[in-house]
Amino acid sequence: MENVDLIIEAAWIATVDVDDTLLADHAIVVKDARILDLLPNAEAGRRYQAVQRRSLPTHLLLPGLINAHTHAAMTLLRGFADDVPLMAWLKEHVWPAESRWVNKDFIRDGTQLAVAEMLRGGTTCFNDMYFYPEIAASVAQASGIRATIGMIVLDFQTIWAVDPDEYFHKGLQLHDQLRDDPLVQTALAPHAPYTVSDGPLSRVRMYTDELDIPVHMHVHETAHEVQQSVEQHGASPLRRLRRLGLLNPHLVAVHMTHLDDEDIELVAHGGSSVVHCPESNLKLASGFCRVSDLLNAGVNVALGTDGAASNNDLDMLGEMRSAALLAKGVARDASALAVNQALRMATINGARALGIADQTGSLEIGKSADMVALDLNALNTQPVYNAVSQLVFAASREQVRHVWVAGQCLVEDGSLTRIDEAALLERTADWGRRMHAGG
Amino acid sequence: MENVDLIIEAAWIATVDVDDTLLADHAIVVKDARILDLLPNAEAGRRYQAVQRRSLPTHLLLPGLINAHTHAAMTLLRGFADDVPLMAWLKEHVWPAESRWVNKDFIRDGTQLAVAEMLRGGTTCFNDMYFYPEIAASVAQASGIRATIGMIVLDFQTIWAVDPDEYFHKGLQLHDQLRDDPLVQTALAPHAPYTVSDGPLSRVRMYTDELDIPVHMHVHETAHEVQQSVEQHGASPLRRLRRLGLLNPHLVAVHMTHLDDEDIELVAHGGSSVVHCPESNLKLASGFCRVSDLLNAGVNVALGTDGAASNNDLDMLGEMRSAALLAKGVARDASALAVNQALRMATINGARALGIADQTGSLEIGKSADMVALDLNALNTQPVYNAVSQLVFAASREQVRHVWVAGQCLVEDGSLTRIDEAALLERTADWGRRMHAGG
Repeated sequence: MENVDLIIEAAWIATVDVDDTLLADHAIVVKDARILDLLPNAEAGRRYQAVQRRSLPTHLLLPGLINAHTHAAMTLLRGFADDVPLMAWLKEHVWPAESRWVNKDFIRDGTQLAVAEMLRGGTTCFNDMYFYPEIAASVAQASGIRATIGMIVLDFQTIWAVDPDEYFHKGLQLHDQLRDDPLVQTALAPHAPYTVSDGPLSRVRMYTDELDIPVHMHVHETAHEVQQSVEQHGASPLRRLRRLGLLNPHLVAVHMTHLDDEDIELVAHGGSSVVHCPESNLKLASGFCRVSDLLNAGVNVALGTDGAASNNDLDMLGEMRSAALLAKGVARDASALAVNQALRMATINGARALGIADQTGSLEIGKSADMVALDLNALNTQPVYNAVSQLVFAASREQVRHVWVAGQCLVEDGSLTRIDEAALLERTADWGRRMHAGG
Repeated sequence: MENVDLIIEAAWIATVDVDDTLLADHAIVVKDARILDLLPNAEAGRRYQAVQRRSLPTHLLLPGLINAHTHAAMTLLRGFADDVPLMAWLKEHVWPAESRWVNKDFIRDGTQLAVAEMLRGGTTCFNDMYFYPEIAASVAQASGIRATIGMIVLDFQTIWAVDPDEYFHKGLQLHDQLRDDPLVQTALAPHAPYTVSDGPLSRVRMYTDELDIPVHMHVHETAHEVQQSVEQHGASPLRRLRRLGLLNPHLVAVHMTHLDDEDIELVAHGGSSVVHCPESNLKLASGFCRVSDLLNAGVNVALGTDGAASNNDLDMLGEMRSAALLAKGVARDASALAVNQALRMATINGARALGIADQTGSLEIGKSADMVALDLNALNTQPVYNAVSQLVFAASREQVRHVWVAGQCLVEDGSLTRIDEAALLERTADWGRRMHAGG
């Protein structure tokens, strides 16, 4: 009998391994934050002696969900301006509100609200891009969630930095601070092709090579962006990024609506990842991402909620459902983006995009114990013919009962273990009252 | 002081009156199953003496949601066959499973599961089309929910009837039985233009006029249906229905993808209602409904989940969100289908389609007390700038705390008051095991 930390016996385990193996009545054995074994329930008790044992007879165990694109602190702007197109939404609502309200406290409280919402809904890792990334990083560290924090870069002055030099300087400082953190890492985060010029983008290229970290960027979000780039640079944003040497496996290109066949080939050939944000693209009427065509071309497509101001939630289960449904409609093919593929987008593909697929994204021996237990014994997920189908098309995140990151239980029976939810809700309501009155 | 049955004091009340009035800190006063008054919280206590009083300081009160198209009993086929296009889904999966498994017990248990799921998620009225409508009607009656039960008509034999004569005979018997029921009514339900020929459709026309009841029908669900009709009848389904005199205010035309500009004018001119089922249309890749164009043309557009086999849930909050998001994408306009319009589709427009807008669909004095209280004090719906925005874009149905139909509390603190949920889940799991083994 080997001594281990935790044994979880589940009705189903969606491993998201290379064969999409769905195990029934199996157990996961955790030791030193990692998955030590996966074996039939009956055998687990004979082979391992656990400090803690958890029986989940009606639950599906799945890899922690990876939100591959968000602006966490923007939860405080949830529903601040709806039913408005992207550029008007940015220029008339979001940017003025940000310049008036965003400060260190806003980032701390907004990021904590986001982390709490994400953990509670089964998200164990997020890829963030926003101001004061050092504060987002410290909130993530305190919460126990896994995160990739963007070192944001813009041409112009914002509340965080005055020019590209300062953005890079502050960003790289954060990168150095986080060098030894097992869960929180950094990415370069040039905001978008239309807000970052060639000079800073060349520096991004240099640092991504030197530091071997992802480049997280909004790309081809709207038709207008593509058209404007052709006018200003003589090339679409994608072709401009290729010219700058950025169309490579480090690139995590977010949105990617308005792609022609050649664009898709370019991305596939470059080995870059795409982050699909279906709800944000619909809400801002930005266009439709050709997800099925990208997947068929071999592109690694991950999934993100975008910020709560354009979604308006950080619900990766809902996003997975929206992605699966929308891809079928857009491809005019009901077999497009089948349930296992949707789950891959929300897990292993996100890990690949962020360069951490050796650590997380699937439930396999040796990986970090980043896991979600979701109870399928509910009115809306019965009967169960295929647990993954119920997960993708019918389950809601309130059915998430337990969440672990690196073996630490961060949600227990539906409650956050490290965040005081009542206090957080009070602070959030307070922000709402002040901004509502001041808006 | 007037004696009344119930006073509910809410943080917000979305009345869905003609001005979309959103009241803050108001109370609803209920007497004899109807809304007697709507007034500021402070005044309610001075004017009325209530048997029961309920204070909801963080809740939004809204009209009960109306699911304007479903096949309730098909909950038992939830997730039975996914990722398959409409005709293959019907012919290779759904119809064989139905002919093997559907009987009176299936209808009773499946409808009860659907009613339980719907009530729990804030749906207080559903428009059903399936076999054994008399059983669906009796389940609805026992549960206290409001319903319109379709008298299904098909050209061919099914488990319920051998030919149109028998469908009409049995249907009209049910209509007679329900004549005095205050909550459960009937509609004529010819399945679709491609399954009902001109003879039976002419009888539908005759009965809808005589009985003054809706005609509930799938219309223009796929491009193939439209094309086939042109080949067989020399006209699109819509034009054929007009020829048969059915394009009138009684018609509740479900799906309505593949509409050209002239089709939209025809529907507007006929005064017919459309039921939009965005998730089912996406899942089966049936096409995109031009919801924004229909609304702009003055058409009454309601909202439905369709059956759980093609959705796979009966979540009207989720459907409202999908409709709002998708309409923006399809119209390429982020201002399309704003939040108040989305809520109208899920409430008053459904009531209009079913001919019961004088009874339900909004919270106005004199109407039936069909109401839903949803708690906005949750991580994913804070802060609150606009309660209706949080409802449409961020809330989940698990936040529904109380549901009333005609003043009767059918969900109390998240629990069903008239349905034994544990027993129902056991029966459902049993169906799942049998059909899984036998499929």
